[in-house]
Amino acid sequence: MTAEPSHPDTHEYSTDVLVIGAGPVGLYQAFQLGLLGLQCAVVDALPHVGGQAAELYPDKPIYDIPGVPFCTGRSLVDALMAQLRPLNVPLFLGHCITQLRRDETTSTFELRSAVGQAFRARAVIIAAGVGAFEPRRINLPELRTLEGLQVFFFDDALPLLKDKHVLVSGGEEPAIASALALEQIAASVTVLHRRDAVSAPETMLQAWQAALARGKVQLVAGLPTQALLKAGALTGLQITEPSGAPRDLTCDAVLVRQGLSPKLGTLADWGLALEKKLLPVDMATFATEQEGICAVGDVVSYRGKKRLIACGFHEAVMCAYTLLESLNPAAAGPLQYTTTSALLQRRLGVLQEKISENTEQPKNTEK
Amino acid sequence: MTAEPSHPDTHEYSTDVLVIGAGPVGLYQAFQLGLLGLQCAVVDALPHVGGQAAELYPDKPIYDIPGVPFCTGRSLVDALMAQLRPLNVPLFLGHCITQLRRDETTSTFELRSAVGQAFRARAVIIAAGVGAFEPRRINLPELRTLEGLQVFFFDDALPLLKDKHVLVSGGEEPAIASALALEQIAASVTVLHRRDAVSAPETMLQAWQAALARGKVQLVAGLPTQALLKAGALTGLQITEPSGAPRDLTCDAVLVRQGLSPKLGTLADWGLALEKKLLPVDMATFATEQEGICAVGDVVSYRGKKRLIACGFHEAVMCAYTLLESLNPAAAGPLQYTTTSALLQRRLGVLQEKISENTEQPKNTEK
Repeated sequence: MTAEPSHPDTHEYSTDVLVIGAGPVGLYQAFQLGLLGLQCAVVDALPHVGGQAAELYPDKPIYDIPGVPFCTGRSLVDALMAQLRPLNVPLFLGHCITQLRRDETTSTFELRSAVGQAFRARAVIIAAGVGAFEPRRINLPELRTLEGLQVFFFDDALPLLKDKHVLVSGGEEPAIASALALEQIAASVTVLHRRDAVSAPETMLQAWQAALARGKVQLVAGLPTQALLKAGALTGLQITEPSGAPRDLTCDAVLVRQGLSPKLGTLADWGLALEKKLLPVDMATFATEQEGICAVGDVVSYRGKKRLIACGFHEAVMCAYTLLESLNPAAAGPLQYTTTSALLQRRLGVLQEKISENTEQPKNTEK
Repeated sequence: MTAEPSHPDTHEYSTDVLVIGAGPVGLYQAFQLGLLGLQCAVVDALPHVGGQAAELYPDKPIYDIPGVPFCTGRSLVDALMAQLRPLNVPLFLGHCITQLRRDETTSTFELRSAVGQAFRARAVIIAAGVGAFEPRRINLPELRTLEGLQVFFFDDALPLLKDKHVLVSGGEEPAIASALALEQIAASVTVLHRRDAVSAPETMLQAWQAALARGKVQLVAGLPTQALLKAGALTGLQITEPSGAPRDLTCDAVLVRQGLSPKLGTLADWGLALEKKLLPVDMATFATEQEGICAVGDVVSYRGKKRLIACGFHEAVMCAYTLLESLNPAAAGPLQYTTTSALLQRRLGVLQEKISENTEQPKNTEK
């Protein structure tokens, strides 16, 4: 299923269907597309899969996924990834799609991510949830140019912070979790929060207290007021303490863990009709009013729409069949089931135990 | 959630919502109703839950349940039952609903099962799949009166067949599985099939061959032509062998395992509009054209309908919200999530770890 670039621009990635959003619904969308034999890829602004489930409730319980009495955001995403794996769908993570335009001459869509990756697809499915998750930044513009160098936003950056003096900005669960992880590898960890109390689940707070007692981790209350720079490199942050006094905190790097803020972002600029920041869709086909662009999950609106994962899964099924009919109508025959279809099982790389006929007492046979 | 009879007829069972069908969609429907605080019960014609998943593919693989990379019909049903259990929804199994009428004076529905159980409900959800599963019978009318006495159709009857000489009718997987189970407990097992070959998965066939070799189990090819009766009790079946010769097979009991045949049955007599044996529904509310009667799952039709379990789950969600609004509008507020709602978690009987606030360094606090 890995698509080869098919365009003069060798950096352009070409596929039949580009799914924007790697949350639970986007991942299941890719599964359904792959199952129906459609080539697809998934892009997401975050550096990891899972969308809201990974960002907003990775360790929180979910009880209403059908047939799954209990899971967490993370375990649900893990299960969806395991389900998707046999179909070898390429994932482009850390790619926030910033441009989408229809190439009228070829009837394909040209897309581009913030980091410059070009995509071309015959159809696009927007599974963008509540929008692209963007990290809440420290409000110091000087830090923007240092992002990816000395300023980071995700735990994916932890390996880069080994033996560094790290300032972690934030006081909620993500910041505390990062600080605890950094305690193992960094030279020092300073958690900067607007107040001198942090919030986290009880067990994490106990670990936090123990870390404070060990001494490598400290909490500082205050608000950052200025980046301290030397020859263009960050050496620390100046903060204002709750008392109003200024204070300099030195550090080699800043890990900003102030949470993520979903932004509809450039989706609003793609020429799609939005109603209350949602994409109205046909509730049988999940087509938007723009031909070739479908949408599923929390980003859509239709009569009765419920923002529940179980509903998004259904939407992904319906949308996959819509695109099968438009992109490969010859293959759109009667519904097939993974339980019985050799074609679907071949795509999934699974073998089915054959129902064998066994004739005993052959001497008595009359046919 | 166990409802008390509320009608002069003390045998009548009264509830808010009666779900007809205990297949995967009916079970998840009950879960969603219970989660929303609606009182409900589930009835099914079969003596066990699971519907098509239990009858047609209990041991076959399913790969496309969202977030469940692999399951079987049986394990899916087990998971749905585990999910439903905390809500204590009563199940009425072996109850084929044969009558449904609206009581206009009370605006409730009166239903009755084939075995005489009366039900009263404010709303009815038909999750009847491809219809009520009825066992394919042996075409000998004399056997009808012996059903439940000496003639049985489901493995639920196995305990009654201990130390009996049992004739198993059928030659496919259900018959072979029953014969193998009976080998352990019955006095003898005669499998009667129209031909001298049986069909089953490879591993089951191996067990079957071993059982034949041990001698307690035998296969007889032929067609039953007459019930042998003595003082009203069954003593055996007369069959015609493939050669045309008659032969008497003696037995204490007959276990008919010739498969199940789904019958729309009396559903067609309830005054509901059917199109091609399907119930047209509003695809946002899953209401039929009869007020108070909804339908979900394989029995419904709407634009784009796909007969997939993942779609039935969504339909169950939508239908539950429809009935919440009509039966308990005061409770129909903003959507709540099992991840965060104390109300939903209380209904599910689960506790959530609290997010605690912990204030360290209290001396420096400024508030």
